[in-house]
Amino acid sequence: MLAGDLRERILRGDFPAGTALPPERELVNQTRMSRTTVREALRILEVQGLVSIKTGRAGGAFVRQPDGDAVATSVSLLIRGQQLRLTALLETREAIEPACAGLAAKYRTDADLAILDTANRTVGDLDIPLEQFLQANVDWHLAVAGASHNELLTGFMSALSKAIYSSTENTAFVDEQVRRTTYRAHKTVTDAIRAQDSAAAMRRMSKHVHGYAEAVVQVEERTQITLDETH
Amino acid sequence: MLAGDLRERILRGDFPAGTALPPERELVNQTRMSRTTVREALRILEVQGLVSIKTGRAGGAFVRQPDGDAVATSVSLLIRGQQLRLTALLETREAIEPACAGLAAKYRTDADLAILDTANRTVGDLDIPLEQFLQANVDWHLAVAGASHNELLTGFMSALSKAIYSSTENTAFVDEQVRRTTYRAHKTVTDAIRAQDSAAAMRRMSKHVHGYAEAVVQVEERTQITLDETH
Repeated sequence: MLAGDLRERILRGDFPAGTALPPERELVNQTRMSRTTVREALRILEVQGLVSIKTGRAGGAFVRQPDGDAVATSVSLLIRGQQLRLTALLETREAIEPACAGLAAKYRTDADLAILDTANRTVGDLDIPLEQFLQANVDWHLAVAGASHNELLTGFMSALSKAIYSSTENTAFVDEQVRRTTYRAHKTVTDAIRAQDSAAAMRRMSKHVHGYAEAVVQVEERTQITLDETH
Repeated sequence: MLAGDLRERILRGDFPAGTALPPERELVNQTRMSRTTVREALRILEVQGLVSIKTGRAGGAFVRQPDGDAVATSVSLLIRGQQLRLTALLETREAIEPACAGLAAKYRTDADLAILDTANRTVGDLDIPLEQFLQANVDWHLAVAGASHNELLTGFMSALSKAIYSSTENTAFVDEQVRRTTYRAHKTVTDAIRAQDSAAAMRRMSKHVHGYAEAVVQVEERTQITLDETH
C-alpha cells in the first residue's frame, strides 16, 4: 500500500529523477508505519526500477526513471517460469523486429548508422571466435531497435534478445556460410535504413528474422530427434 | 540475495506451482538471516509474480507460475514513468496487433471465436453508452491477443491497451459513424481469423489499427492547436 502510494507520487512527478526520497525515519514519521513496512516498500520500488537504493553515509533511496530493464526482467521470468515455447519467443521477435527496422528507417541519425556499421563489420569478420560473432550479432539487432527511437520497442527487444540467445545454446549451425549470409542480410537492412526506405527495411528484416527462426527450429527438431534416438 | 536464491529454486522447479514455501521461521533458520530480510525477500518474489502471499491461519507464501501480469505491470511503469509519446505507443501497437491477428488465425479455438463474437456484438450495439463501447472495444482487441496463445504478446498487448486508453481521454471523435466502422473492421478481422487466413487477418488488422492511430493523432493535433490558440 505504501509502495503504491510512493509509486503514484513518483510517476506523477512529485519526486523528479535523481532526487532522494525522504529518509527512512522521516517516512516512518510521515506515514506512521513501522520501519519494516517502510523498508519493504522501498525494496518493492527498487525491484520495479523506480528507485535505486544506495547504502552508506550519502545513501538513501534515489528516484529513477524506469527504463527497459524491469521489462526485460519480467519477460525473462515469464520465459523461464513458463518454460515458454521457443516458437512463442521467435513469433514475438518476428512481430517486433521488422517494425523496429521500419521505424529505424524513419528516425535514424548519423550516430545510429555508425553503430549499425560498426556492429556489422564485426559480424562479417570471419577471423573472430564464435562468441564474438554472436555478441556482434545481438549488438546489431539492438542497434536497429535503438535507431527506432521507440523506448518501448527497444525494451521489448532487449528482453527478447537476451532470452533468445540464452535459450538457443545450440549454435552448431553457425558455420562460415551462416556468418556470410548473416552479414549480407544485415547489410541490406542497414542499406534500407540508411536510404530511409521503411518498406524495404521491414521486408528485409522480416525475411532475415524468419530465416533465422526456421534454422533454429530445424536444429531444435534435429536435436530432439537425436536425443529421442539415443534413449 | 535471498530473493535471488529462492527465485532460482522456484524457476528450477524445486517448488512446483501451488506448493507453499517453507514458513518464515523455517527460512530464518535455514538461511540464518533475519526475519526482516526473509520477509523482504518474499515480498520481492510477490512483486515479481513468483509467489502469492496469503495471510491468516492457512497462510504462507505459495509458489505460482509467473504469467503476463508482471510483464504488463513493468510495461505500464515504463510507459507512465517515461511519459512516452503517444506516437511511440501507437507505433508499438501497430507492430504487435497485426502479428497477434496473424497468429490468432493459426491457433484460434472455438472458445476464442466465441469470445471475439461476443465482444464485437457489443461493439456493434449502438444503444449502449460510450463507456461500454470503449470497454467492449478493448475486450475484442485483448481477445485477439488471447487467441494468439502467445503469453508474451498477450502480456505486451494488455499493458499497451491500458496505456493507450488511459492516454487518449479525448474520445470526442467516437460518434455513431466511428462505431459502425469499428464494428465492421473487427468483423472482417474476425472472419479472417475464423477462416484461418493469417495473411488476411494481419493485413486487415494492420489497416484497422493504422486508421485508429491516424484518427487519434489528428484529434490530438486539433486539440493542440485549439489549446495553442487560446494562449
